[in-house]
Formats: sequence, C-alpha cells, structure tokens
Amino acid sequence: MKVAVLGGDGFVGWPTVLHLSNLGHEVHIIDNLSRRWIDTELGVQSLTPMDSIQERCRIWYELTGRRLHFHLIDIAKDYQLFRQWLAENKPDSIIHFAEQRAAPYSMKSDRHKVYTVNNNVNVTHNLLTALVETEIDAHLVHLGTMGVYGYSSVGAAIPEGYLDVEIENLAGEKKEMEILYPTKPGSVYHMTKSLDQIMFQFYAQNDGLRITDLHQGIVWGTNTDQTARHEQLINRFDYDGDYGTVLNRFLIQAAIDYPLTVHGTGGQTRAFIHIQDTVRCIELALSDAPKAGDRVKIFNQMTETHRVRDLAEMISKMTGAKIANIPNPRKEAPENDLIVKNDQFLALGLNPITLKQGLLSEVVDIAKKYAHRIDRKRVPAVSAWTKDIATRVETDPEGTRLKSVS
Amino acid sequence: MKVAVLGGDGFVGWPTVLHLSNLGHEVHIIDNLSRRWIDTELGVQSLTPMDSIQERCRIWYELTGRRLHFHLIDIAKDYQLFRQWLAENKPDSIIHFAEQRAAPYSMKSDRHKVYTVNNNVNVTHNLLTALVETEIDAHLVHLGTMGVYGYSSVGAAIPEGYLDVEIENLAGEKKEMEILYPTKPGSVYHMTKSLDQIMFQFYAQNDGLRITDLHQGIVWGTNTDQTARHEQLINRFDYDGDYGTVLNRFLIQAAIDYPLTVHGTGGQTRAFIHIQDTVRCIELALSDAPKAGDRVKIFNQMTETHRVRDLAEMISKMTGAKIANIPNPRKEAPENDLIVKNDQFLALGLNPITLKQGLLSEVVDIAKKYAHRIDRKRVPAVSAWTKDIATRVETDPEGTRLKSVS
Repeated sequence: MKVAVLGGDGFVGWPTVLHLSNLGHEVHIIDNLSRRWIDTELGVQSLTPMDSIQERCRIWYELTGRRLHFHLIDIAKDYQLFRQWLAENKPDSIIHFAEQRAAPYSMKSDRHKVYTVNNNVNVTHNLLTALVETEIDAHLVHLGTMGVYGYSSVGAAIPEGYLDVEIENLAGEKKEMEILYPTKPGSVYHMTKSLDQIMFQFYAQNDGLRITDLHQGIVWGTNTDQTARHEQLINRFDYDGDYGTVLNRFLIQAAIDYPLTVHGTGGQTRAFIHIQDTVRCIELALSDAPKAGDRVKIFNQMTETHRVRDLAEMISKMTGAKIANIPNPRKEAPENDLIVKNDQFLALGLNPITLKQGLLSEVVDIAKKYAHRIDRKRVPAVSAWTKDIATRVETDPEGTRLKSVS
Repeated sequence: MKVAVLGGDGFVGWPTVLHLSNLGHEVHIIDNLSRRWIDTELGVQSLTPMDSIQERCRIWYELTGRRLHFHLIDIAKDYQLFRQWLAENKPDSIIHFAEQRAAPYSMKSDRHKVYTVNNNVNVTHNLLTALVETEIDAHLVHLGTMGVYGYSSVGAAIPEGYLDVEIENLAGEKKEMEILYPTKPGSVYHMTKSLDQIMFQFYAQNDGLRITDLHQGIVWGTNTDQTARHEQLINRFDYDGDYGTVLNRFLIQAAIDYPLTVHGTGGQTRAFIHIQDTVRCIELALSDAPKAGDRVKIFNQMTETHRVRDLAEMISKMTGAKIANIPNPRKEAPENDLIVKNDQFLALGLNPITLKQGLLSEVVDIAKKYAHRIDRKRVPAVSAWTKDIATRVETDPEGTRLKSVS
C-alpha cells in the first residue's frame, strides 16, 4: 500500500512512518518541517538528539533496505503544489498529522493564535479539496484529540464521536437523530480540531470522502520498536512548557531534582496512550476503512486515564522527587472526571502498554540518560489562557516555581 | 455610538451603514472591496448601477451632512493592520459582514473552495483575536445563516441557536445540557458559517467576548429608506447564477421574458427577509447586547418561509412568466419543510415587510427599470455541488435552459 504521512517528521509522525515502512508499505513523508522551525523560534530542542529528516531516512534505508520518500511541501500555503503531488502519486491512504499541536503554543500570543488557526484549518481543508479535485479515493486518517470535548462539565463518558439526541419534529413527535458529539474546546488548538470535525462531516457527506478521525489522548513514551533500532532514529522528546506534556515535564523535573510542578490541585483527569500503542492504532485504523458514503469513523485513541496529581505521585515514588502546587495558567475546571470509551480499538486487537509497565524505562533510558541536555528554564508552562490569568501568574527566573501575585 | 461595519460596501453592509449613520451613529466602513473584484472575475455586474464606495460616501455626506469613514483593509490577510486600526479607533460595536457569502461561488472549483475557507475563517478569527489582544469590549454582531442547519432531515422547527439534550452522566443519571444546535452545512460557504459558530463559542467562553450571531434567511429587496434617497446611493442587485438568490433570478427571468428556472421539483423551502427588515434587525440586535460571560446570543433573522415553486408561481402570476423545471446542481433534499422560530426579534418590535407587499415594487422599480442592463447568459446557476452532478447537468449557450444528459 502507498501511504502518505503528512507531518511525518513530527513526534507521532516519525514513529508512524517507521512502523508502516516496517510493515512493508511504501511510505511518503510530506512535511514543511515547521516543528523544527518552532524549536528555533522558542530556543528549545528535543531532549533526545534528533537528526535531520534526510539523515533519518538514510539511516533507515541502510538498516532495512526500505526507502522513505521525503517531500518538503507546505500544504497550508501551497495548495497547487500539494494537489499536483497528490495527482502524480495517488496514495492509497493518507495519515494527517500536519497541524500545530500544542495548546500552550496556540495560546502564547495573538500571533500564535492566528498562526494555529490559519495553518490547521487550511491544511485540513486544502487536503480535503485536493482529494475531491483529483478524484483520489484514498482513506484519510486524521489525528484529532479528545480535548475537543473540553472535559465535559456533566462528567459524561466520552463516546466514540457521536451522540443520539431526541428532536421534536413538526408533527410534535420525538425523533431520534445522531449528531456529532458536541464539542467545547478549551484552547485555540483544540478549537481547530473541533473545526476539522465539521469539515470532515461535510466532505464525507457531500463528496463521499472516506475519513477516520482518531481522537487521541496524551501520547507518552519516546521510542517504539522501530525508532529504538538505531540511535539516529530516536524520536523527539519535548519537555518545554509549550510542547512538553505534563508527564514529560514531570520526568524532566525529577531528573534534575526539581519539584514536580502541579497546576492547581492537579485534579484534572487526562487520557493517555503510549507511542507504541499509537502507531499500532494507526495500523488498525488503516485496516478498517469506511466505505464511500459512510459517516466519518471516529475512534477514541487512548488506553488509560489518570489525574495529574496521581501521575505526580507515581513519578515521585519512582524517583523521590518532591511535588509543588502552583497556579494554573489554563482556564479550566480544577477537578474533572473522565471516562472514555475505547471499545473499537480493543475489539480490533489493541493490547495496551500501561504507564505502570513503561514509565520506569522513560525515567532511566530517556530522562536520566539525557539529563545533561536539559535547559531548566524551559520546563515551566507559561502561556496564560487569558490576560486576567497572565496578571495573576508570574514565573521566577529559576523557572520551576511559579507563584501567585494576586 | 462608534460602529465599525466590516464588509460595509456589500449588499447588506451598505444599507446597514446608511441606516446606522441615519440614526446618528459614527460609522466606519472596513472593506477590502473583494465583492467588486469578484464581479470583475466573473464578468458580471450589479443590475443596478453602483458607484464606488468613495463616491457613495461623498453623496451621503452632501445629502445628510454625516460623514462615513472608509478604510481599505483586508482583515484576513493583514491582521496587524486591522489590529492597529482597532486599537486606535476603539469602536463600541462591530458588525461583521466580511465573508464570501455565496454558496454557488464557494462550490465553483477547488480554488473557490480554498478561497472561501481561507478568507472567511481568517477574517472571523483575526477579528476575535484582535478584540482580545486590544482589550476592546465591543459588542460583535455577526451575520450568519440559518443554512448551517442544512434544512434538517427530521423536519424540526429551527430554534434560536441552542438545543437542550439529555446526557447520561457517570452515575447513570440523565442530565440536561445545552448545546449549540447541531449543524449540517450543505456547501463550503455554509460550512464556514458553521466554523464561525465554534469560534464564537470559544471566544465568548474563554475571553468573555460579547457576541450576537444573526442566523439570516435569504435577503430580498434592493432598497431601504436610506439607499432610496439618491440614485447614486442605490444598493446592489445580483442576478447572476453565483450571487443572485433564487428570487432575484426569477425577477430577472420574468423581466426578460424567460421561463423561471426551478431546480428539481422546487420543493425546497427557504426563509426570507426584506433588506429593510434586515437593517432594522441589526439595529435591534445592537440595542440588546449580551454581557461579558454570556453565551453567544443567537437570533433567527427571517420573517417568512416559502417553497421555491410557490415563489415561482407568485412571480409568474404577477408577470405572466412561464415556469421551467431543470436539474438541480445542488446536492440537497428535493423537498423539505422549514419552520423557523423568530420570537426574539418579534418581541423586540420587528414589524415585517412581506413578499406579498413588497414584491411588485421589485418587479417594476428594479427588474423592469434596469432590464436593459441584464446579461442573460449570466442568470443560470451552474456551480455543481459534486463532480457527479456536474456530468449530469449541462448549460446550453442560451443560458436559461439547463438539461439533463444522464
């Protein structure tokens, strides 16, 4: 099968590329390398030393004899070039990771909000339009996020994408109608994923595009079986306040003997999945494509949920790190429950790696091994969700202790 | 009150500008004049002879002594310039018409789809971000469309924006939750208005922006009391297949003695409102602003519904024109019912002008008066919704008789 991976140089993109290449697929990477540019902008770098995409592809070829094809295309900015590439290459499947993916980055300033919306909406829409225009019947698999639901205030179980509601018709009868599960995104980044959903619904309905939308939890872990095969194939590990997820930041804080900074009470419950399970889920989603005319297939791609304070305790027990509660820069409920249905992937044969099994290796093989590369000033999350919050939260120069000035 | 009208040179924008100026407000027009450029692109023109925006403003000043301030800004492309304008001018209210507004134009080709999404999403989002960044607490009134609901298949009454649904919470109890009424847009244009809704919801919730979204029906009629005050203040009248609404096209077909072309059975029910009522609704919406922290206020801005075939019959009776049924280039249900709640505007004092009262004046004062300016080739709607439909629908060179070739 010929697979195009849009954003194939990124954190989930790269392991997906190797996983699919290893399964024998012909893999094409399309990427504008924006994530590397953002590292430069922010003055941060992956904890793990990353090679260029060209070098990574060369190493993989030396190791396996399998070619990876890299194409530098900015899909949001250069619709014509992308459409031409599509028409000439006719992939069977397309995996779409090509979006700005960090909520804190998307809330950093007005410029970052504008960039995130412009980039994410145009990439997704240009892709959909180009598929219609070239009449390529590729299965599109998109990486969405469970965060579109905004960790619902009624504390409902998050279903797999849809909700049956009752609507009274003109004759006064109650009729059942299936709708997209209503979204309530909590950041500009999450909002763009909510916009994606509407675009997918339209193009599936109007043009019969075949689309799977994977609503992902927080991905943890660095390596997969394939990225672990060579030092120069290693995956990126973000620990900075914008791109580093809460788990990665705890790991790094533990490695440099700093307290684990928990926002607010740490009562936020989040969903997690290991990177190895993520690439396996993508393989499973590819094998289970919808038919033309089907509604968008939506999977919840996660394997376990944890409260942030429980995560902190888990890592504290493993490493001896202290825990510090600091003001929350996000506008969100201080405590939330979260139950997520992931029956579809379990039915397809997913056998999850749990945090309990895998976390120690992250502590030892990644965080401690590369601790000398840590820039401690970059660890705190400082993007405030509103101007109000920004005035109440202040970072000290050491970076790890944020304090309330209200 | 200082009011900024984004898209103030357009079909609804211009009468709104005059209406508000006449009420004594200080009105600023921000427009990139894209609608005039699209006329040039399509080789069409308003049936009514339109002056430049600068000339229109000059005439209004001569007539009334009131100044209109025109600013040529492309909000989608030039965020910085717009933000600077906002920071310097600090309007009390902003009316947002600055979107590509024709469904057929949005479906014309991939380039038109890409343009419509890029323009509409970025204008709306740049506006929202700029309001947050400049901390200007202006009331934002947006012109949306009832078309976001896709003329719901269950035939429900369209409520004013929200729907109460029951969701089972984690304890197994049914909890009521209010959600945005689910959308099912039927064109790329309608899709962008559906995307707007999500962005409004987010910025109202995260930043306390005060937003009113007017879900409008099809606007008919050419002049308001103010545009009728001088020949050079006349409003635009679009009759081409892309921008002309079904009613305008019928009027023009009647004026040039051509059959009224009804798509399919003409069983599509649509909602209508006269341009004079539209500007009055905007005045009413301005007077009833939400408070910071309120949900987005959503009004249905329409006054009556009609089936397309009934409209054709109404005009046929008035003018003697014949009726011809032709294949429908749109992908939509051949027949639909539509009941729309507009209680909020009626409660605020709207007293609608009906088609029965106003239509004859459109026939005589506009369509017949300017019949010599009609380019008959431009009347048919030719943008096909899908490639399939495009192969089944074909225009003949005369332009009015489309035939099925399947």
